[in-house]
Parts: sequence; structure tokens; C-alpha cells
Amino acid sequence: MAMEIGEDDWLVCCGSTDFAKLMMKASPFNSLVTAIDTARDIWLNQVNVTAWLQAFSAHPQIGKSPSPSINSDFARLSESEQSTAFSTTSASALQELTEWNVLYKQKFGFIFIICASGRTHAEMLDALKGRYANRPIVELEIAAKEQMKITELRMTKLFSDKAKVVSETDL
Amino acid sequence: MAMEIGEDDWLVCCGSTDFAKLMMKASPFNSLVTAIDTARDIWLNQVNVTAWLQAFSAHPQIGKSPSPSINSDFARLSESEQSTAFSTTSASALQELTEWNVLYKQKFGFIFIICASGRTHAEMLDALKGRYANRPIVELEIAAKEQMKITELRMTKLFSDKAKVVSETDL
Repeated sequence: MAMEIGEDDWLVCCGSTDFAKLMMKASPFNSLVTAIDTARDIWLNQVNVTAWLQAFSAHPQIGKSPSPSINSDFARLSESEQSTAFSTTSASALQELTEWNVLYKQKFGFIFIICASGRTHAEMLDALKGRYANRPIVELEIAAKEQMKITELRMTKLFSDKAKVVSETDL
Repeated sequence: MAMEIGEDDWLVCCGSTDFAKLMMKASPFNSLVTAIDTARDIWLNQVNVTAWLQAFSAHPQIGKSPSPSINSDFARLSESEQSTAFSTTSASALQELTEWNVLYKQKFGFIFIICASGRTHAEMLDALKGRYANRPIVELEIAAKEQMKITELRMTKLFSDKAKVVSETDL
């Protein structure tokens, strides 16, 4: 039985509909490595700024839990990626993050995107403050590259979950 | 009598409301050179991608006349900037431009922006075809720099028109 990956699965990896459609068009993939190479090319060279902004806006703000209205698989992954941060955070760190997130969004027009896996809130706050000084066009590309890191982690998990389903079905 | 430049004047130079507000905040300027330096800093380092997209969308597509619904001073300048192009164009050039403009917007998510003054439609079509190969993030910054050239030409005209009004009032 082959691994079946649908448009919804790609949207959980990256919240851009253009990205998800182009991944469907390029499917199926014979390995995770090939799929990631294709995803990088689609994300960094093919889809445009509108797609980037759509994907950024799918994430909860760092330091906040995902909104209950968003896709539940997407929300579950966002929570799991921020689990290190939430397990080591403090009220003052969360307060400072909230304030800097507001400044960041005012300057750049989108929320602060960072690959949160394994990072504490203090580390992400330092990164936010450092990146705040960037020119908007520079920061836009950095955010897109952070989004790509998130996408790759999610694709790795997706392929591993689907492989499990396939091997269980084959029993 | 001092030169009076309002937010509407800045919006005719560049259709971003953030740009116009920041120019008002930095006013008055003691020379065109100082104003252009400030405008460059605001446009390239301060306002974000949302402002850039708003300004791009204020322009008519190259090869088309401005929509009658837009600001009439803005429309008048767009027409005058494309006057060389329209005086030397052909039906086939206009047709090809229309087709390439569609492809460009599909790829990049915004219309093709180029400083049209003194350029023929054939020259702009060549530029469009060349720029079409760019990565979206690269093309976004090129479009913003072309917008800046347009803004500078319009600011030069604005200062010259306002200086005329001041000197006539002083008579």
C-alpha cells in the first residue's frame, strides 16, 4: 500500500494553499528527502509573498496557545513545538514576549515566526529582539526560512506517521 | 510663504498611506534633496511589505490607462509617465504586454512595476520578460526600487510645482 498524502496534510505542514497545491502536483514522492527538496524549491523559489503571509498567519503567536478555531492537527503541532518553551516559562517572560510581539507585528506587518522546537521563551525573545532591528525585506526572508524549518520538521513527522499507518495496514 | 505639502501630495508620489504619514511626520523639509533622502529611508528601511503592496496596487498596469476611479492627480502623472510609450506603441506590443502582465501577476502576486518615464512599451516588455525569471523575494525588492524611482520623479515635480505656487503668491 502506498503512502497517501492529501492537500490537508500539506496544509498542516505549511499553511499556504499555493504550497499545498504545488506539493500535490509534484506528488507522489519516493522519499522524504525528495519531498523536502521539492518543498524547499516550491517555498523559496515558486510561491510568492502572498503565500508567505498566508502561511505566517496560520501560526499562533509565540507564547500563546493556538486559537481553537484553527485546524486541529495544525494546532496540536504548534502546541507540541512550543512544549519546551511552555514547560520552562515564567509569567514575566510571557508578558515581555507579548509586548515585543506587538512591536514586531507593527513594524513588519506579520507575526514573529521562529522554529520553536526545543527553544525556551527566553531564547525566542532574544531572537525576536535581535531580528527586530532588521530591514522589513530582510526580515521577510528570514521569517520564510524559519517557516521552512517548521515545515521540514512537520514533513518528517508526517512521513513517519504515514509510514506507521502503511506498515500497520500491511500486517 | 513656506511650501505646504500635505498627506494627499505624498500619496500622489507613492500610494502607501504609511509612507505618506511618515513623510508628514518628518516634514517640513528644507530641500528636495533632504526630502528624497528621507523618503528613501522610509520606503526602503521603515515601511513593510504591506505598504509596498498597497503602493504597487495604486498604479495602472503598464500598457493600460489609469482607472477613472483613482485619485486624479495620481492618474494624470501615470499617463504622463507612459506618454513616450503610448506615442510609439503598436497593437501587437500592447497585446503582448497584456499577456505578460497576467503571467507576471500570477507568479508574483502584484502588478509589474517599472519607472516608465522615457521608456517604450517594447523596452518595458523586455524588462518584464527578464524580471519574470526572478525569485519572488528578489523581484519584490526590485519592484520596490522601481517604485522609489517613480516616487523621486514625482517628488521632484511636486517640489517644482509648489515652488511655482510660492513664488507666484509672493509676487
